[in-house]
Amino acid sequence: MYIKYDELKKTLKEILMSRNIKEDRADILATIFTNNSLDGVSSHGTNRFPRFISYVDKKEVDVNSIPKVVFNFNGFVRMDGKMGIGPLNAYIAMEKACDLALEFGIGIVALKNTNHWMRGGTYGYLACDRGLVGICFSNTTANMVAYKAKEPKLGNNPLVIAIPRNNNEHVVLDFAISQYSYGKVSSTLLDNKMLEVPGGYDEEGNLSNDPEKILKTRAFLPVGYYKGAGLSLVLDLMATIFSAGNSVSKVTSFGDEIGLSQVFIAIDPNRANNKELTDKMIEDILIDFKNAKTFDGSEVSYPGENTILRRKENLEKGIRVVDSVWEEVLALKK
Amino acid sequence: MYIKYDELKKTLKEILMSRNIKEDRADILATIFTNNSLDGVSSHGTNRFPRFISYVDKKEVDVNSIPKVVFNFNGFVRMDGKMGIGPLNAYIAMEKACDLALEFGIGIVALKNTNHWMRGGTYGYLACDRGLVGICFSNTTANMVAYKAKEPKLGNNPLVIAIPRNNNEHVVLDFAISQYSYGKVSSTLLDNKMLEVPGGYDEEGNLSNDPEKILKTRAFLPVGYYKGAGLSLVLDLMATIFSAGNSVSKVTSFGDEIGLSQVFIAIDPNRANNKELTDKMIEDILIDFKNAKTFDGSEVSYPGENTILRRKENLEKGIRVVDSVWEEVLALKK
Repeated sequence: MYIKYDELKKTLKEILMSRNIKEDRADILATIFTNNSLDGVSSHGTNRFPRFISYVDKKEVDVNSIPKVVFNFNGFVRMDGKMGIGPLNAYIAMEKACDLALEFGIGIVALKNTNHWMRGGTYGYLACDRGLVGICFSNTTANMVAYKAKEPKLGNNPLVIAIPRNNNEHVVLDFAISQYSYGKVSSTLLDNKMLEVPGGYDEEGNLSNDPEKILKTRAFLPVGYYKGAGLSLVLDLMATIFSAGNSVSKVTSFGDEIGLSQVFIAIDPNRANNKELTDKMIEDILIDFKNAKTFDGSEVSYPGENTILRRKENLEKGIRVVDSVWEEVLALKK
Repeated sequence: MYIKYDELKKTLKEILMSRNIKEDRADILATIFTNNSLDGVSSHGTNRFPRFISYVDKKEVDVNSIPKVVFNFNGFVRMDGKMGIGPLNAYIAMEKACDLALEFGIGIVALKNTNHWMRGGTYGYLACDRGLVGICFSNTTANMVAYKAKEPKLGNNPLVIAIPRNNNEHVVLDFAISQYSYGKVSSTLLDNKMLEVPGGYDEEGNLSNDPEKILKTRAFLPVGYYKGAGLSLVLDLMATIFSAGNSVSKVTSFGDEIGLSQVFIAIDPNRANNKELTDKMIEDILIDFKNAKTFDGSEVSYPGENTILRRKENLEKGIRVVDSVWEEVLALKK
């Protein structure tokens, strides 16, 4: 079914407020979930909403916690998320990083004891809407293997790098370090297809495109094999030491994916540049990139470009929500 | 042949001084080239030295240029490299980023009009030796394709993320965004082997492990396919707008790989932490990572771990230099 933006947001907000989340915070949170579905990322929008509420109902997420600044030195701030609502904690942390960037040119906020931020791109857009470059990453439970390893010790630690465009159609790279998500491998199996490129190891330790074999070993591959494994490791190291929070290994010991460590960096390109110059440099690079000839004659897309297309389309015709998911959501009403 | 560290450095330094590079700068530069070979990265050490000197002799590199601060706002500094010596410019920029990190918690130096930094890891080690986390990246000429594109519009833009260890055996991730370098694909062809994983497209636009086919199309793949393509693009966007320097597209128009844009970020983990706590968090993560079971029973390595092994070995038995390269180097003496 297709649901209009305002109706979807209103429904989610009502459910959030029924869990004792104050109206102003419920509004931001409902906007984040609704925008994720609007942008075509339902996996971290409506589809994920029931699980989020179940964490709230289990009291793994403390709806009343407000992140607290526990250390503050010029451009470096550390916050304790106090096991509060992941997307709201991340929103506040990125807002603070943006304030620091405006004050110091560059700012970093390290956030410990927080929860799943849903879609990392949300916080990239936040920085871009303020005219800033935003970089953020989160650790996760261990769900990925190092090169030739069969035991998952690495998180797929999503990394976001977001560059503001003058027309608000920002370049937002938002990617997990695994080549494929668990969801993608599962849905490929259900479709009875093979993965386009290797997504993990089979039981003998060979690279495999077969979703069934990979789901058996759970040996999901990082992007670029050993290269992505290294990237995942250093992101976890940074998230942990900057926040003095939980590492991937510690988070994994909790069972549910809670108590995460995250980092938010914002940088102001327009203190040194006339803004028109920044905008022109960005557009020149994108024009050249999109001019690339392709094998099938199609046009290449920059990160976030398809998001904008989906956003426009969904704003017009409504947001697609799977019927069973919508029933699940409505059942959460009190 | 094997050459002892001191002899190698002395020879390179003498040649550099014969090109009117002042002694203190020649000493740092000779150390960088020698350390790269010492660490097993001869491709950006002795092997590359003759090409570096040829750029100097062609006056594409101005040996007398000192990078100049052209903008300065708290933690954000922009420098003009004035087409000077790439490794010395990068060295000065990372030193400045470290100074900023100590003063502001985090610091960024964007460097324009610079030249090839040789091995990016050099500047990661520099930050780590001062107890700081170092992040740096550079743009390059276009040498990589976007997903399904056949025309190279992306640089393999090397990215370094370096985490300090208490024993100086730092974690240094230093990787180009291409799955394989041009050198690796060429040497695999000469060995009459296939690449272990797909490294590019063949003429029909299929993923290929065949070095011969890839060298024909020059359609080198990024790590993680579309994911790495996006990462390359945002690194170029950031390097260009922060430095107001040349983009990959502009650099490509120069023919030789000159006039690059680079970014150096340093972050101080020990302003907020007791240093012993930082060290312990890092060691705990590395211990857990290295405990991963593997398919063949071997041990996984963290980024930079093998570098340390090679460094120790080469310090003892001397640095291997290919005979013909050594003759080429000696012929540069004036």
